[in-house]
Amino acid sequence: MRERLVIIGGDAAGMSAASQARRLKGPDELEIIAFERGHFTSYSACGIPYWVSGDVPERHRLIARTPEEHRARAIDLRMRTEVTEIDVAAGRVRARDLESGAEEWTAYDNLVIATGARPDRPPLPGMDAPGVHGVQTLDDGQALLDTLERAEGRRAVVVGAGYIGVEMAEAMMKRGYEVTVVNRGQEPMATLDPDMGRLVHEAMTGLGITMVGDAEVTKVLTDAEGRARAVATDDAEFPADVVVLGMGVRPETALARAAGLPLGEYGGLLTDLAMRVRGHDGIWAGGDCVEVLDLVSGRERHIALGTHANKHGQVIGTNVGGGYATFPGVVGTAVSKVCDLEIARTGLREKDARAVGLQYVTVTVESTSRAGYYPGAAPMTVKMLAERRTGRLLGVQIVGREGAAKRVDVAAVALTAGMTVEQMTALDLGYAPPFSPVWDPVLIAARKASVAVRAGGA
Amino acid sequence: MRERLVIIGGDAAGMSAASQARRLKGPDELEIIAFERGHFTSYSACGIPYWVSGDVPERHRLIARTPEEHRARAIDLRMRTEVTEIDVAAGRVRARDLESGAEEWTAYDNLVIATGARPDRPPLPGMDAPGVHGVQTLDDGQALLDTLERAEGRRAVVVGAGYIGVEMAEAMMKRGYEVTVVNRGQEPMATLDPDMGRLVHEAMTGLGITMVGDAEVTKVLTDAEGRARAVATDDAEFPADVVVLGMGVRPETALARAAGLPLGEYGGLLTDLAMRVRGHDGIWAGGDCVEVLDLVSGRERHIALGTHANKHGQVIGTNVGGGYATFPGVVGTAVSKVCDLEIARTGLREKDARAVGLQYVTVTVESTSRAGYYPGAAPMTVKMLAERRTGRLLGVQIVGREGAAKRVDVAAVALTAGMTVEQMTALDLGYAPPFSPVWDPVLIAARKASVAVRAGGA
Repeated sequence: MRERLVIIGGDAAGMSAASQARRLKGPDELEIIAFERGHFTSYSACGIPYWVSGDVPERHRLIARTPEEHRARAIDLRMRTEVTEIDVAAGRVRARDLESGAEEWTAYDNLVIATGARPDRPPLPGMDAPGVHGVQTLDDGQALLDTLERAEGRRAVVVGAGYIGVEMAEAMMKRGYEVTVVNRGQEPMATLDPDMGRLVHEAMTGLGITMVGDAEVTKVLTDAEGRARAVATDDAEFPADVVVLGMGVRPETALARAAGLPLGEYGGLLTDLAMRVRGHDGIWAGGDCVEVLDLVSGRERHIALGTHANKHGQVIGTNVGGGYATFPGVVGTAVSKVCDLEIARTGLREKDARAVGLQYVTVTVESTSRAGYYPGAAPMTVKMLAERRTGRLLGVQIVGREGAAKRVDVAAVALTAGMTVEQMTALDLGYAPPFSPVWDPVLIAARKASVAVRAGGA
Repeated sequence: MRERLVIIGGDAAGMSAASQARRLKGPDELEIIAFERGHFTSYSACGIPYWVSGDVPERHRLIARTPEEHRARAIDLRMRTEVTEIDVAAGRVRARDLESGAEEWTAYDNLVIATGARPDRPPLPGMDAPGVHGVQTLDDGQALLDTLERAEGRRAVVVGAGYIGVEMAEAMMKRGYEVTVVNRGQEPMATLDPDMGRLVHEAMTGLGITMVGDAEVTKVLTDAEGRARAVATDDAEFPADVVVLGMGVRPETALARAAGLPLGEYGGLLTDLAMRVRGHDGIWAGGDCVEVLDLVSGRERHIALGTHANKHGQVIGTNVGGGYATFPGVVGTAVSKVCDLEIARTGLREKDARAVGLQYVTVTVESTSRAGYYPGAAPMTVKMLAERRTGRLLGVQIVGREGAAKRVDVAAVALTAGMTVEQMTALDLGYAPPFSPVWDPVLIAARKASVAVRAGGA
């Protein structure tokens, strides 16, 4: 008996699941139907800022696999087709062809919900005006590039200073724009503690980007033709020839909500370790539309990141294909850059630790990426949090230049393993003068943190 | 009662121990006397190739702390003074002033043996001729530079193709020499498996370095004035205006051997976890003169590496100073480079695994340092060994370009934590297009290895 797998969403999580299930079960055993409402499949949304900047010259390079390539692997991919309803009781979905408007029900044995995320676009006046752009999808990126082609002025305002905001600030700068970043918080990169965000702030200012913090956007002002011309806050106006929204995203779970599927605190689908929607055999979910378990805090979080989406898809496809795999959770690792400034974090910030009742010590060290005497040695700041008394590592944040970002991986593995900072001081990390000081910056931080833990007393 | 700490050897391990002990105990509590037979203290021997190459312009930059700086911290440092005997029964050492020839006994309460390593210089004809240079100490490096200053020809032969050999090949090339590397093994970098060493071989050949493998040096030929003029093997001669020895090192433990202290299979001192010489209260040892526990194989090994020496010194100084610290062991991490080729390894090679009775699966993957579409993405080859049946990670070797070497740290932490390759597939490593493909190369290897483990059967 041939089973049917239906997938909602043709990007990383959905198509990874499809591909992996197909690897394990041929078309005689498993029919796979995937619905995608957009024009593209399996692309790197994380790469959009680098396409906008010109670093990646062509859109197609961001596409890992085209619809045709998926179809060649016996995946029945229906593009420009939007699922409008999940009928859990009957085990079927209703989909509408966005070109013809025709609707049709499709039954499933297994369903994968991979509907992704949508940009956090506050309902303010002018937010939908021409010239205001999100950068969530390839379609968004193309629309922005079309605007840049036409725009005459050279002033860009980026709203929001998280990962997307800072990456887009760099992209617009590289395209020759004067860039202003308007941010709700005092410091950019709210995924860092403010003291580390401050370092990013200073570096971005040094790059010539105007940073406006503690500023709530109240509206986008438009010109006579209705096009965006400025971003307004309570007490200021920032002229803009183009406005880029970089305010983060929320799980796209309207369908799931309507179907009565379980959602978490952040609006994401809740799954078990096998990525099965809780309490719903045969329904799976992965990618930017789910919440994931944070292994450090023990809480669910929403993290939209391609690398998680790919892992989710792999796990779902393996399980649907008759194998066994789990996604145990995350430790919250993220890396980014603004020009040559590298930014990394993993684990808990101070406020995350407090929120779950953890007491901690914190240390910050200044070191270098290479031996101090080796050419190109660049400064690096490492902040480390460890639990009071136990000394368990809780989190690491790094801001620096070349070699700073991926150093956070050491802490990510240590967090996963539940290491203490004292144990970390003995880690056998690679050392040679072109790659590290004789004490790696992460080890220096661990040493200092273990001293702080011991001094932390009863 | 003021105690006395005596230290033999004024480099990384010895002076780290001295500094840490001084931090914990002031001069009223602890007298510290350190003997160093050379001209320098606390320098980076690992940096010598980069000083010879010209990357590091001045010798003094390699010196972390001068004799005067140590003395300013109330450490009685006696330069150009060689310890000639350890009298364990009486708790004293005999030292000779190398300038005056005067000898003197000094009693100790605690003794630190940090005598380092000596280059592996086989007793062949011509090995001591002028123009043949080791690069173990700053004095060696200076002698080599003096020779280069005088040398008229431009042909260098490097004997040995381990870390020092390949780094010196780069250094001599950067100084404008035609470089030939003569190596006993078929492939360079015997700390890698031969299939990975082959990649280094090809890259070095591509850089214009002549690689001669499977070649046993039989003598150094000299000219009429007794200066080295060529390196001879059984069946060939390689003309040389300068000969650099890069054949690795052995523990310098003649003193310890004469004193009846316990030595291991590789001639290094054997210590307990606190870096106390086994069975000898009050005698400590660290740095290149000791053997260290390999946590993966459970065997002692000799690894001469500044980062271990510094940790040993820190541990010894803490314990002598009344604190508590241990050095649990190593996993065998090492990184190096030849021009822009990066080389890294951690854990066991295939032959190491076999030697201790471990059965394993091995996978090799080709990936890139960044997202494939991101500018500067460079190829990277990752080889991974996992134990058969358990799937426990046993080792990783990486050869690639920018970003390859320090990726091995992820594996070093995973080895320390005893992770399986299956567990590693879920690691939350930093992802953004400028820093990694969506599946980090280490994760791709772990995925493939976990498939191989499952396929490995009973």
